[in-house]
Amino acid sequence: MLNANLFRAAFHVAAICGLYLAAAMLVPALVDLYFHDNHWQVFAISAFLTGGLSLLTATATRGTPPPFSKRFGFIVVNVLWIVFSVAGALPIYFSKLGLTFAASLFESVSAVTTTGSTAISGLDHMPKGLLMWRSLLHWLGGVGIVALGLFVLPFLRVGGMSFFKLESSDSSSDKPFARIATFTRAFIGIYVGITLACFIAYDMGGMSRFDAINHAMATISTGGFSTHDASFGYFGDNLVLLWSATLFMIIGSLPFSIMILFAVRRRVDTLRDPQILVFIGYVSAFAFVTAVYVHFRDAVPFSKTLAHAFFNFASIFSTTGFASQDYTAWGPLVVVAAFIATFVGGCSGSTAGGIKAYRFLIMFQTMRVGLKKLLYPDAIYSVRYGKLTVDLDTQRGVLLFFAAYMMIWAFGVLGMGALGYDFATAVSASITAIANVGPGIGQVIGPAGNFASMSDGAFYLLSLLMLLGRLEILSILVLLLPTFWRA
Amino acid sequence: MLNANLFRAAFHVAAICGLYLAAAMLVPALVDLYFHDNHWQVFAISAFLTGGLSLLTATATRGTPPPFSKRFGFIVVNVLWIVFSVAGALPIYFSKLGLTFAASLFESVSAVTTTGSTAISGLDHMPKGLLMWRSLLHWLGGVGIVALGLFVLPFLRVGGMSFFKLESSDSSSDKPFARIATFTRAFIGIYVGITLACFIAYDMGGMSRFDAINHAMATISTGGFSTHDASFGYFGDNLVLLWSATLFMIIGSLPFSIMILFAVRRRVDTLRDPQILVFIGYVSAFAFVTAVYVHFRDAVPFSKTLAHAFFNFASIFSTTGFASQDYTAWGPLVVVAAFIATFVGGCSGSTAGGIKAYRFLIMFQTMRVGLKKLLYPDAIYSVRYGKLTVDLDTQRGVLLFFAAYMMIWAFGVLGMGALGYDFATAVSASITAIANVGPGIGQVIGPAGNFASMSDGAFYLLSLLMLLGRLEILSILVLLLPTFWRA
Repeated sequence: MLNANLFRAAFHVAAICGLYLAAAMLVPALVDLYFHDNHWQVFAISAFLTGGLSLLTATATRGTPPPFSKRFGFIVVNVLWIVFSVAGALPIYFSKLGLTFAASLFESVSAVTTTGSTAISGLDHMPKGLLMWRSLLHWLGGVGIVALGLFVLPFLRVGGMSFFKLESSDSSSDKPFARIATFTRAFIGIYVGITLACFIAYDMGGMSRFDAINHAMATISTGGFSTHDASFGYFGDNLVLLWSATLFMIIGSLPFSIMILFAVRRRVDTLRDPQILVFIGYVSAFAFVTAVYVHFRDAVPFSKTLAHAFFNFASIFSTTGFASQDYTAWGPLVVVAAFIATFVGGCSGSTAGGIKAYRFLIMFQTMRVGLKKLLYPDAIYSVRYGKLTVDLDTQRGVLLFFAAYMMIWAFGVLGMGALGYDFATAVSASITAIANVGPGIGQVIGPAGNFASMSDGAFYLLSLLMLLGRLEILSILVLLLPTFWRA
Repeated sequence: MLNANLFRAAFHVAAICGLYLAAAMLVPALVDLYFHDNHWQVFAISAFLTGGLSLLTATATRGTPPPFSKRFGFIVVNVLWIVFSVAGALPIYFSKLGLTFAASLFESVSAVTTTGSTAISGLDHMPKGLLMWRSLLHWLGGVGIVALGLFVLPFLRVGGMSFFKLESSDSSSDKPFARIATFTRAFIGIYVGITLACFIAYDMGGMSRFDAINHAMATISTGGFSTHDASFGYFGDNLVLLWSATLFMIIGSLPFSIMILFAVRRRVDTLRDPQILVFIGYVSAFAFVTAVYVHFRDAVPFSKTLAHAFFNFASIFSTTGFASQDYTAWGPLVVVAAFIATFVGGCSGSTAGGIKAYRFLIMFQTMRVGLKKLLYPDAIYSVRYGKLTVDLDTQRGVLLFFAAYMMIWAFGVLGMGALGYDFATAVSASITAIANVGPGIGQVIGPAGNFASMSDGAFYLLSLLMLLGRLEILSILVLLLPTFWRA
């Protein structure tokens, strides 16, 4: 039997998080009030409910915190993300949109996992408060995932990121908690700072102020919710906006640890994290080839195809999920390129999802060494990640993650098939959910469509897949071990 | 500079193999003569060309064999399979079908890799000799791949099969070469024996004698070429034939090592190779769920849906590629199930392709251990394969193969997209080629279609993918290492 104390403490943490969320609901309420929309009441009621329930839970679960254990860590992570998702769904469910609970939960999970698939059509005429709530969930989800990636997962040894821990590249003489506090402050500062910079760029590029703030939050969190059904297509061929968004989506996919270390220590040598070059490399390669292909195929001016190609592939690889056009109409190569890109993802320690650049780098190096060992079995080769040597356990961990990832995808595909979806929808919905990208392939969920017509079963399945992907799969799969519950 | 001696010796081996192939071409020539079809001349000319060229090459490349090295092994394997494919393509290219060389090569590669995708439509009215040649290439390709898997690849340490080597479960006091000779004789005996058994079953089940012999060769080699455009659909709802074929396709996917050891040593305990149970398990699970699904969906009698479901999923998992019906018309679940099943494959040491059952077993065990180690990082867990312990290097090898496999698939998908193919065709053609299955998904290459309309570029790309899959990827990728060519 698992110590009930762990659950008490986990729910206590979640309840405190719920209080913050209740407070956050006042932001969209104020937005609605500002726009004289009486839809603010939905947020007031949701805030009251969430706050009240959280307060009760927090009081009921008070007590001495349990000694920290990995088991506790995994329970907290899972409970936190579920509470975050359910609380986020309340205002959407109570709203005048009339969504089912499954659709509301899907929308909320899609927001907090920074996926950006939407179950709502008619965004352009929606209460502004709801739009703001979706963006805010994105933005807070981004904070959550970076904090998780930087401070929690390395400790739980999930995500193979243990050697990217901040400590490793820092002097160990500091006090660890003081350092975490410094880093957290630096992180929040940077996150707010680049969101503001993005807002200013969008504002100057011609967006309305409301659009600019929403899209800035959705960009930096690599989320992808827009305030328009046409997503970024609403802004047409505005090259300033396209390139600004491209830049900030890429920034959102870079490891925050590097920006933090730069801010705290003024150290630039950490900029040499090799995954950054790999990430920018594949974004550029896919975008450039696409730009040339579309330029010749459809005789569109190169400056336009280049901007749109960079925007849309930065959007997919950064797992943001904005679309400036229906790129699946750009020809068969672009369709499959977008599909394959959906698996890949950004850098570790960022708001991006997917398999991530550092894993590909390690896999390629491991493969090279594996091939060499076929010729010289007794030679000693080391797998390098920049200046670091990647030990056998980490190599296995990375490969294992990849295998788990592909198998979860396969199960998702079978699930979507069982729910009656066609081939393109099934195979792309599963991966766009796991990788937290947003759009899929095909008429239903492609960049020109949305998830509004999906069944409740699909909403639940895809919500689970989004959470699995967001929590690096293993943090959830570990709960399936019988050993986990015996202790 | 690589020793030119290695190439000389490799071409010598290939030339001798070419002589055997030239002799094999007389079989279809005799078939044509028997049916009074003057198409026998095509085979006579091809045999003359192949035999003459092989004789010249064999004479020119005579000399002392080089000391055996892994490098030599990899060169021989690659050269052999290329020569086998090109020589096999000659009678098809010279035939009255008027195929391009690319299409003829594709047909031949598809035959020798026991894939079974066909570039020919109009099989029912084709010269009988050509049909026999396709079946014969299947059957010889099956011999080649089992011999490779049993005797060559373990030595080259490709396929992670080193611990399935016959030696390991045998007394090491025997002389190795005497043992290999015994095993080879046993293998040929078993292979011929089960082909005959299959022929008799088909003959008694109602096939014409010519159909029975061709389909028997295509079944045991898990190839999948039929003598009819409708594939097994030609035989309608003949349940005896469907169940016979299911049985023999499954037998063709079982590890031959086990049958050999049983024949040579009368040992049955090797029947407990756990991958057999895994393989039969997933075939049955997919088939049974499909049978129930189709029974209720289309109100077809259960005995019929069960037979067709078992037949078609045994066909996909065994990587044979026969189709008794257009199973992609059985509803969305079956479409995605067939797609996912295409990746999976049969058992190691058989004629089947795909990722293979033992790799999935090892991956699942490694994953379970990996998850446990998240909770107890210092505990010692071992990954088990039946009674054996799988060491870290083998675990990594299996995971690495899986990663390489999925990446080759992704490159294949991008390639097919660049050649202009639609989403379903691109994603399924790539995997059906790598896994040596046969049919894909969609109207063009689905079970009701064929590859006849493909472009030459696609034929070359898919031929490469079939060879990559057949030679367990790494045997070909190793040639890309600069180290390979320096020595």
